[in-house]
Amino acid sequence: MQIPSGSGLLAGVDIGGTKLAVGVSDLEGHLLDVEREPTDRSQGPDPVMAALRRLLQSALDKASAKAPGQRLRAIGVAVGGPLDPQRTVVLRAPNLPGWDNYPVRGFFERAFRVPTNMDNDASAAGLGEARYGAGRGYSHVCYFTVSTGIGGGIIVDGSIYRGASAGAAEFGHQVILPDGPRCLCGRQGCLEALASGTSIARRVREAIAAGAGANAVLRLAGGDPTRITAEMVAHAAQAGDPFSLRIWEETGFYLGLGVANVINILNPNRVVIGGGVSNAGDLIFCPVRRTVQERAMPELAAVADVVPAELGDRVGVVGAICLAQDLLTGREGC
Amino acid sequence: MQIPSGSGLLAGVDIGGTKLAVGVSDLEGHLLDVEREPTDRSQGPDPVMAALRRLLQSALDKASAKAPGQRLRAIGVAVGGPLDPQRTVVLRAPNLPGWDNYPVRGFFERAFRVPTNMDNDASAAGLGEARYGAGRGYSHVCYFTVSTGIGGGIIVDGSIYRGASAGAAEFGHQVILPDGPRCLCGRQGCLEALASGTSIARRVREAIAAGAGANAVLRLAGGDPTRITAEMVAHAAQAGDPFSLRIWEETGFYLGLGVANVINILNPNRVVIGGGVSNAGDLIFCPVRRTVQERAMPELAAVADVVPAELGDRVGVVGAICLAQDLLTGREGC
Repeated sequence: MQIPSGSGLLAGVDIGGTKLAVGVSDLEGHLLDVEREPTDRSQGPDPVMAALRRLLQSALDKASAKAPGQRLRAIGVAVGGPLDPQRTVVLRAPNLPGWDNYPVRGFFERAFRVPTNMDNDASAAGLGEARYGAGRGYSHVCYFTVSTGIGGGIIVDGSIYRGASAGAAEFGHQVILPDGPRCLCGRQGCLEALASGTSIARRVREAIAAGAGANAVLRLAGGDPTRITAEMVAHAAQAGDPFSLRIWEETGFYLGLGVANVINILNPNRVVIGGGVSNAGDLIFCPVRRTVQERAMPELAAVADVVPAELGDRVGVVGAICLAQDLLTGREGC
Repeated sequence: MQIPSGSGLLAGVDIGGTKLAVGVSDLEGHLLDVEREPTDRSQGPDPVMAALRRLLQSALDKASAKAPGQRLRAIGVAVGGPLDPQRTVVLRAPNLPGWDNYPVRGFFERAFRVPTNMDNDASAAGLGEARYGAGRGYSHVCYFTVSTGIGGGIIVDGSIYRGASAGAAEFGHQVILPDGPRCLCGRQGCLEALASGTSIARRVREAIAAGAGANAVLRLAGGDPTRITAEMVAHAAQAGDPFSLRIWEETGFYLGLGVANVINILNPNRVVIGGGVSNAGDLIFCPVRRTVQERAMPELAAVADVVPAELGDRVGVVGAICLAQDLLTGREGC
């Protein structure tokens, strides 16, 4: 049973390095209101938490107007970076300077006086896709979010697989090329260093520095290699630029190796890929699916469809709302 | 609750490519008798099944003499190769020619008229180590068996994680070097092709063919490179042979990458390594642990001790008995 019984409202809070999003829904997860604003990271956590409190109060007021008399029952919070095993603080927040060990969960419990569930943003997003998106109806869902970095979520029978200390599903930091490029995490040859949006842009800049003919991409960047983004490389490839097409082939090969490894280890029946890089569509999904067929065990590849995420930019808020649902239904994860 | 209530006997059947082993225990898993004999693979499954039936009857007779009046309650069967999702047949048995799709589970159910539970031998062995061996008391155990091939088992809160079609934990077929050596599975750069006993012997032979000074190992093989085994390379390394020491360093590095990836994906609090190659002790565990520290996420490496298996050559029978226990306690796995 994934839907709490009774009546009331749920809140989902998505704390991102560039934007904040807060949503309020009924117990079944139907969104009644979503509020967003950019994250001002310059002053540390306190002003951001104040903004989140204001956004959530505003979302609750609007939701209450649509569902009169319903009170808030639980809050779910999704945030980037590894959490402590009890999931009360962020141990290291790579995108939120000054947030290390900040007591995020306690803040919401005190401010709104309801139980609060917190988890890694990729695990929460995976739960959202498994319950309401592209993983709906599948028992074993592996979720990849591929944007500036690469995160993961493992959802088994509708619950998050968290591991021994709430740190599982670091799909982006599996080693794909032992002697490969340096990753932002400090290690070498991680999937994230080969297939994230950041790595796509970096590889293009390196190719240009090495003399590659990347005129189509450079033009989109106004001639300035430092302005190149993965999105520009997608536009150039969609217009037929051979250099950009090769970059996507290579990216899809690496991402496909990461997906194949996850399939070989976890035997999912659905692999859902979201995040900005997945918007490149066939440019990325074709080489990913081909690599999975070539590199995963055939029995396992046969049951694991690789599909795009469905929730788009709602995934953060919907995933956080699923965390709130889990509190009320007593789903602990494993 | 992992121990069935009531009284009676359990049987564990371990069907290996080189040897058969059958054990009978009480419901708590205390072994009362174990019978073994070599596997005669030459005539396909029928004579092997007849031998297993005879061995099991003999073990039951001896166990009954020690525990009079106790009747057999359930059988567990461990066998290599991918199983069908219902775990009634072996889909492809790489070490047992002619066994593909043979109805192993039904044979035991008909012959002994008790419920029978079957699983992949590495998953069963992992369950045995988690319940009675080096993983005892840990919530999230990942088990590697490193011998001629490399298999895996994922045990969460005392239950096997099987995945969507009972095929999870193929740790040996994660891709570690995308352009690496060909694996017996037909794909390229799998962990098994880099760190199994077979691959150790192959790498030594290749090095000799390329002119490496491997006199210490060659001497142990009586001058015949085709007779080289991983065990000989261990003996030579233990005697201080620099060439053999380098081979173990390299093997431990690759195995360590595979362990680090599993840690990053599954966040276990115990990694247990068994199988013949693990008998090399520090030769393999030192570079494995060093590589894990270098390549796994620090928070995840910190909670995941990498330790040798404890059950030795009883692991197959004990793991199979755990499968029989699970039938009686209703543990389904996930």
